[in-house]
Amino acid sequence: MAEKITPRSADYSRWYLDVIREAELAENAPVRGCMIIRPYGYAIWEAIRDGLDRRFRATGHQNAYFPLFIPLSFLQKEAEHVEGFSPELAIVTIGGGEQLEEPLVVRPTSETIIGHAYSRWIRSYRDLPVLINQWANVVRWELRTRPFLRTLEFLWQEGHTAHATAEEAIAETLRMLDVYEDFARNEAAIPVIKGRKSQNEKFAGAVASYTIEAMMGNGWALQAGTSHYLGENFARAFEIRYLDRDNVLQYCHTTSWGVSTRMVGAVIMVHGDDQGLRLPPALAPIQVVIVPIWRKDDERARVLSVAEQVERALATAEVRVHLDRRDDLTPGFKFNDWEVRGVPLRIEIGPRDVEQQTVVLARRDVPGREGKQAGVPIAGVAAAVQDLLPAVQQALLQQALAFREANTTYGVRSYDEFKTVLEEKGGFIRTHWAGSDADEARLKEETKATLRCFPLEVPEGEGRCFLTGQRTRQVAIFARAY
Amino acid sequence: MAEKITPRSADYSRWYLDVIREAELAENAPVRGCMIIRPYGYAIWEAIRDGLDRRFRATGHQNAYFPLFIPLSFLQKEAEHVEGFSPELAIVTIGGGEQLEEPLVVRPTSETIIGHAYSRWIRSYRDLPVLINQWANVVRWELRTRPFLRTLEFLWQEGHTAHATAEEAIAETLRMLDVYEDFARNEAAIPVIKGRKSQNEKFAGAVASYTIEAMMGNGWALQAGTSHYLGENFARAFEIRYLDRDNVLQYCHTTSWGVSTRMVGAVIMVHGDDQGLRLPPALAPIQVVIVPIWRKDDERARVLSVAEQVERALATAEVRVHLDRRDDLTPGFKFNDWEVRGVPLRIEIGPRDVEQQTVVLARRDVPGREGKQAGVPIAGVAAAVQDLLPAVQQALLQQALAFREANTTYGVRSYDEFKTVLEEKGGFIRTHWAGSDADEARLKEETKATLRCFPLEVPEGEGRCFLTGQRTRQVAIFARAY
Repeated sequence: MAEKITPRSADYSRWYLDVIREAELAENAPVRGCMIIRPYGYAIWEAIRDGLDRRFRATGHQNAYFPLFIPLSFLQKEAEHVEGFSPELAIVTIGGGEQLEEPLVVRPTSETIIGHAYSRWIRSYRDLPVLINQWANVVRWELRTRPFLRTLEFLWQEGHTAHATAEEAIAETLRMLDVYEDFARNEAAIPVIKGRKSQNEKFAGAVASYTIEAMMGNGWALQAGTSHYLGENFARAFEIRYLDRDNVLQYCHTTSWGVSTRMVGAVIMVHGDDQGLRLPPALAPIQVVIVPIWRKDDERARVLSVAEQVERALATAEVRVHLDRRDDLTPGFKFNDWEVRGVPLRIEIGPRDVEQQTVVLARRDVPGREGKQAGVPIAGVAAAVQDLLPAVQQALLQQALAFREANTTYGVRSYDEFKTVLEEKGGFIRTHWAGSDADEARLKEETKATLRCFPLEVPEGEGRCFLTGQRTRQVAIFARAY
Repeated sequence: MAEKITPRSADYSRWYLDVIREAELAENAPVRGCMIIRPYGYAIWEAIRDGLDRRFRATGHQNAYFPLFIPLSFLQKEAEHVEGFSPELAIVTIGGGEQLEEPLVVRPTSETIIGHAYSRWIRSYRDLPVLINQWANVVRWELRTRPFLRTLEFLWQEGHTAHATAEEAIAETLRMLDVYEDFARNEAAIPVIKGRKSQNEKFAGAVASYTIEAMMGNGWALQAGTSHYLGENFARAFEIRYLDRDNVLQYCHTTSWGVSTRMVGAVIMVHGDDQGLRLPPALAPIQVVIVPIWRKDDERARVLSVAEQVERALATAEVRVHLDRRDDLTPGFKFNDWEVRGVPLRIEIGPRDVEQQTVVLARRDVPGREGKQAGVPIAGVAAAVQDLLPAVQQALLQQALAFREANTTYGVRSYDEFKTVLEEKGGFIRTHWAGSDADEARLKEETKATLRCFPLEVPEGEGRCFLTGQRTRQVAIFARAY
């Protein structure tokens, strides 16, 4: 199996596709740029969905569902929005065998159709805030696609909220950014940098876009979630207004925020190694796999009976456990198979273990003998696993943090140094920046690095911009990005 | 509020739409035939989804996700399938600003695209069975639409399985029909009749279609879920084959089965009354609402403090509870508001109750004084609620069963009697039937009644067909239907 996975150092893009194939996460659909999410990949997405959904509810949001189809005219109501999205639209022109009078857009995002609904739902300050989220599929006609990272159709959640004031809407925008960071850190074991997008990179129609940026295993950046303060832009386009306490008609301030199946790609690229996937226990569909080992038939029955006992003990302890009963495969094959799939812990049970009433526990994140613990008493397996799972979760986060630190260059003094660092070391360049939008665009064209964000936390204080030489307090992170 | 709901006896269709509007379940979208599912309606769908999903997992199924878009040519591979679905297709002809070479169909159902994937995934008998389900949106270009019951876009699950033999596939088809019946009965409190569809009414491409049929509050039938045995039809169209134990290439036998947001419509129409919705506790987003009652400000604090205590006790007991804190509304308004929304139990707490450390408990399903229980000690509220919720659940099921029995006519002797019963009494006519497909079609045209199903359980034994006079063991249920 593992031989079927290209080493990361040889070809990172190929490694990524190999892992997706070998771990049976997804595959290309017959329609260009679309993918089939296979059961194991979908189970990871379900864990992401549940982790986010729980947080949305805890912060007072409700789920709803808005239509897939949006009249083309709706998109045209917000000038910047239509300009940003019109090159990417899939358009239905035929319905029930007849040419449609008004073509329908397959939603690329739902600000417009939801804005239209809010304009009817919101009458008074008493109706505010409106805090709604939707789990849905959306379509953007991308030219270059990559499974999970960028596909024509993808699954996501999109939150859409309406507020009385700019202050409240901005607070919501940042609250949801915090929710995303908390999820990424504590469930996906991915450290992210919270920041604001530049004007060049912001969402089409937003006043300000915020992002969580993560570093992938090749040093590239991935925008793993965004939260937008939309100001009055969509409120004016769709007449979302309310009567305030003084009976004066006011425009609402709205927000939107989203995380997509792209997060699965982030999990693969942040944690994966040359053996395949490594899943953080919080998101792993299977947290512990039990591999029974036997040679002779009489061993089989004894080993399986103990394996089932361990399986029950773990299931009772609410551990997601799977007993690999396949008869026609060797233990070595199975070890490899579950390693490729990134299962955090493996329990091996052989005839000797049965005699001694113990098992062997192996960590996916610590290769070789070091990650193995033999002689774990059966009576204590559940407790040992419950200790180890958070340890693995924490270790993955710490490794990712250390990797990011090792691949971040703090401060460059010149554009030449900027280019040298990018070429020779890659990773993130975190540095003072006072360039214009045009400077940013030129830099992107010349180096392929984009301004990922202006981080919200800036302990640096004032410094000199490497490009313009101006002194500034503004710090930016640049990187190649997906 | 309640005055805004047309009585069922005056206009059942209007009543249905009134309830959906007043309970804020859904509304029409700006695109004809599409709907917006509002948070309260969506929460009911989420409960339906969770109840089904749990059952699918317990029977060994896994979730996955297949693309929204299907190449038009795929649909054409199964002759009956394309004939059935082509009048209902929404077709994308433009993507990314360009005319597509091959138009893409927005999936009306996914047998074809999933069949294509299975043909690649399945090689040997060892790969079987494949047991996959998908939660998704689908689009069928319907001319006459009605919220939840028939919409252009709807949400559903579609199970797709592949098996080595006809026997196994048929067993799966019937197993999932049982799962649907179990869900309908025990969570939706809807008694359903399991049956086989006639050739005229079966799914386009199936060998045999099975259904769960429910009776709505006006005596009409609703097909609330279907399970299809597809034989080798899609296996032959998409080359889904496996090597059997003797190394011979064989076609798989496949099944598909689905339940949709239509189930929300069934819940509304089976349980609703002239006051609005009545929700079975298993599906109710809010199982218990607490309405605090006070006149003076000093009462307010004391009442709210007790209300919060009760809220905590119920939440701890894992009851879905909501405390209505709204200051600007009278208790009477609130009572009505939550009745319209069908909350199964209401707790009233006033100053006198606080003094006596008791509450009043009122059942939504038993109107007036009879449904009220005063003087329930606060310490015992959680226990009382935990006793009452299953009682309400059971009562709704029993009422629906009794209603169905009262509105079912067992056996008619002639076509004239058939027509008289349909006109004067309505409901289900359950009777021996030996008519041809053409007879069935004529009867539909002349009476608007359709052959809902051949029930699987037939205690009737042999009898005489009311139309042809032939003796037969076959029994059919006829009814007007949505």
